[in-house]
Amino acid sequence: MRDKNSKSIIKHFKITPPDQTIDRELQQKIDLKTKPLGALGRLEQLAKQIGIIQQTLCPTLTSPTVVVFAGDHGIALEGVTPYPQAVTFQMVMNFLNEGAAINVFSRLNGLAVKVVDAGVNHDFGEIEHLLNYKVNKGTHSFLKDRAMASDELNECIDSGSSIVNDLYASGCNCISFGEMGIGNTSSATLLMHYFTGISLDDCIGRGTGLDDDGLSKKTSILKSAAANHGEITDWDEIMQTFSGYEMAMMTGAMLQAAENKMIILLDGFIASTAYLAANKLYPEIKNYIIACHLSDEKGHRLLLEYLQLSPLLNIGMRLGEGTGAAVAFPIVKTAVGFLNEMASFESAGVTNKA
Amino acid sequence: MRDKNSKSIIKHFKITPPDQTIDRELQQKIDLKTKPLGALGRLEQLAKQIGIIQQTLCPTLTSPTVVVFAGDHGIALEGVTPYPQAVTFQMVMNFLNEGAAINVFSRLNGLAVKVVDAGVNHDFGEIEHLLNYKVNKGTHSFLKDRAMASDELNECIDSGSSIVNDLYASGCNCISFGEMGIGNTSSATLLMHYFTGISLDDCIGRGTGLDDDGLSKKTSILKSAAANHGEITDWDEIMQTFSGYEMAMMTGAMLQAAENKMIILLDGFIASTAYLAANKLYPEIKNYIIACHLSDEKGHRLLLEYLQLSPLLNIGMRLGEGTGAAVAFPIVKTAVGFLNEMASFESAGVTNKA
Repeated sequence: MRDKNSKSIIKHFKITPPDQTIDRELQQKIDLKTKPLGALGRLEQLAKQIGIIQQTLCPTLTSPTVVVFAGDHGIALEGVTPYPQAVTFQMVMNFLNEGAAINVFSRLNGLAVKVVDAGVNHDFGEIEHLLNYKVNKGTHSFLKDRAMASDELNECIDSGSSIVNDLYASGCNCISFGEMGIGNTSSATLLMHYFTGISLDDCIGRGTGLDDDGLSKKTSILKSAAANHGEITDWDEIMQTFSGYEMAMMTGAMLQAAENKMIILLDGFIASTAYLAANKLYPEIKNYIIACHLSDEKGHRLLLEYLQLSPLLNIGMRLGEGTGAAVAFPIVKTAVGFLNEMASFESAGVTNKA
Repeated sequence: MRDKNSKSIIKHFKITPPDQTIDRELQQKIDLKTKPLGALGRLEQLAKQIGIIQQTLCPTLTSPTVVVFAGDHGIALEGVTPYPQAVTFQMVMNFLNEGAAINVFSRLNGLAVKVVDAGVNHDFGEIEHLLNYKVNKGTHSFLKDRAMASDELNECIDSGSSIVNDLYASGCNCISFGEMGIGNTSSATLLMHYFTGISLDDCIGRGTGLDDDGLSKKTSILKSAAANHGEITDWDEIMQTFSGYEMAMMTGAMLQAAENKMIILLDGFIASTAYLAANKLYPEIKNYIIACHLSDEKGHRLLLEYLQLSPLLNIGMRLGEGTGAAVAFPIVKTAVGFLNEMASFESAGVTNKA
């Protein structure tokens, strides 16, 4: 599954598809609920997917958590975004003070939030509740150089894996990943372009909301970067060149979550490029993924199509942080709830279809 | 607003649009939250709509409730559905025993459930928690006759209004309406056809899941009914001819909810035809409506387009009972939550866009 030309030694994961044998029993349980066959649509598919992952007719979601990875990007200083880089650390403080969208949504919908410094360009010192996995103070600009070194990429994968294993050990079986990093749609755009072959023009979007001039400038910068680096096909090299620390750490985290057979709630554009990278190494990760929403960021639609994922929500969100997954999470809970709690035709004394 | 040819005397409602003056202040509050402008998409529109309805920058959703109206249909005995009529009363018992999908979803998502006997073909006797507003034991078949008499239609509107006023008096400001009635997609199909002028073929769907033969039979029966009744343009006459008790009661309930300036969560195909009828009398009701989901029942997409409503969810559900609204409700709660609980750039010390 790994590209044979890989030059660095990325941690190996044991990701296997769940046994599908239980599918039939799950479908039968679903079909005997007091409703017409198939009438709960996507909720039925979710219930079955989760039952298969957990190998049970009575799945549960325990200690659901969203991990928000923050990191800075050298490319942010080249003019791809109207926000100053300091917003990354300011938003980390906002996460820790529980004032950001992801805090509010998680609180309302029953998710815990963990915040990780993957590589923010700021000295936080000792600070409560911030998980310190800082690789470096922001990546290099990938306009001409590689964003990160080979050992930094490995460190990201290892750190993502550790963070997930800690949560798993504490009882979490359902996990989502968000991010914060000024400039990271630029990074994501190039990862999408290089891993999928889809044209840069189709991958580039307005990020935090660029106007036409801003978009044109971003496009020109990202095209220069691609021209400077030329063709790259090696997984490690693509990641070293264009990834952010927070995204590479998310890739490692997703891979570990799949190895642990956890349910992975996929957020928007950035998270989907981290998943794309994970999927390129271990395609079987697809069994553990639930695509939570379609972002308004332009490239996301084509990316989800490429990944053959169908999003639960399409409500024009484009904020990142894991917010799309946090808004969709009650739908996933509802799917598990109907499988466990709804009456069957027999138990309710309801006549089934003639 | 009323059709001048109306023959019966339907209760009058005072439905006025909310004052829009507060729009600007709400938009400003939304724009100062720590997120790029517009990045929460539909959630921002919802927050604004609810703020305008409640005329406040800090809206709240109190005692959210789904009212499930049940009624039987004479047309069900003509061969439009594979389910026996008894399923309506059996499902009412399932609702009361809290085993149906709407019970589970409401429990999970924080909605209370009220069950109304609008006209089920069954003697319930004295039974706890069932609101008895029975008009009659099922409508007449509308194949040749009118489904209900003029005074029955009035009774439905009045009862719906009373039920909503009772809930409003007890503190409910956010309400959804579900239904149960074997055969009621047939009734809804004809209401849609007569009120919108959209061809019957485009309004008819598979209901609880008819196969091709079943659909062809249903189509032929509904076309005969339309041919037997010919052109009808009068609101009362359309309703008397084709509505069910549960749907007409829902229409009255929606009108009262709009008069009370309550937030109305719109469920699927059947509920949307009840709303269509309400909207034909009082178009200003549109200010109070949130379209919760697009049903998999075929006519619903065209109906929502006709009503100029954009659904929050499109996840292939087609169960009725209010289930689509119950699944979407956390999204509405999340929208209110971000408006009230998210930090502003200033309060969080985050730099806004340059």
